[in-house]
Amino acid sequence: MTMVQVSREAARQIPAEGLYLDDLQAGQRFTTGTYRLDEAQIKAFAVQFDPQPFHTDEHAAERTFFKGLVASGWHTAAITMRLNVESGPPLAGGFVGAGGEVSWAAPVRPGDVLHVESEVVEVTPSRTRRDRGTIVLLSRTINQRGDVVLVQKARLVVLRKAAA
Amino acid sequence: MTMVQVSREAARQIPAEGLYLDDLQAGQRFTTGTYRLDEAQIKAFAVQFDPQPFHTDEHAAERTFFKGLVASGWHTAAITMRLNVESGPPLAGGFVGAGGEVSWAAPVRPGDVLHVESEVVEVTPSRTRRDRGTIVLLSRTINQRGDVVLVQKARLVVLRKAAA
Repeated sequence: MTMVQVSREAARQIPAEGLYLDDLQAGQRFTTGTYRLDEAQIKAFAVQFDPQPFHTDEHAAERTFFKGLVASGWHTAAITMRLNVESGPPLAGGFVGAGGEVSWAAPVRPGDVLHVESEVVEVTPSRTRRDRGTIVLLSRTINQRGDVVLVQKARLVVLRKAAA
Repeated sequence: MTMVQVSREAARQIPAEGLYLDDLQAGQRFTTGTYRLDEAQIKAFAVQFDPQPFHTDEHAAERTFFKGLVASGWHTAAITMRLNVESGPPLAGGFVGAGGEVSWAAPVRPGDVLHVESEVVEVTPSRTRRDRGTIVLLSRTINQRGDVVLVQKARLVVLRKAAA
């Protein structure tokens, strides 16, 4: 697939097996590679998951709230996940989300190039299970003009070294 | 596409042009049709948007947190959107989300059949724009055993009749 251009900026002091809860602390920041979105991708996602005229038909989209074709918010959220999984914080157990908040701050249009900047804002060991804990990761998905298009505060389940 | 079976239970007293903010009040409930998810769909979504072993490879998935293949949470969220758009509240201007909260309450596995039950919990006319307002819609995505797999509280922008 050629739709993703991800340049992993990790590999610094990050252990090969990835980051455990024990390695994480509030304030740590991560920046992903980029993802370019085109009209065909926007329509293909929307036909499957969000079949509304402002996501599927550029002419009909002109007469809507958005004044033109825009990506489904769930498409932007899914791309944010892809970027985080491939080039965000390299979590040892992977990205396992328990939930969170998401807000769509600006529309995403064909040709936009997105990346994600994220920050660990909370690290909480489980009280009952010594092999895991949760973190809150605040992610901002940003376009080529620097506009934030999505803000997400995700609660993720992260393994502790005790689990390894 | 045969992956969606949606039975619209609407068409009762709902106006042909759909529901405006003026037609909505807290306590209104909606139930969608159903969507059956198989292994191929789970993997196809994951390869594009959430390439982690517990979503892409049933053998590797056995050795993870989930003890078997599970759908990406963003896939479940996208299916929830599809069900709501096609057979949830028939909003006049469509489903335009500003943001919200999502939590993944239980894993979704191959063969699961999902539907969405939602309830209007807040209706707020805009103070500055007489043609619109927002609602908060609480949606529960439920599998064939009655387990809630996703809970979502969405802030949606809804048109007022003044806009028509």
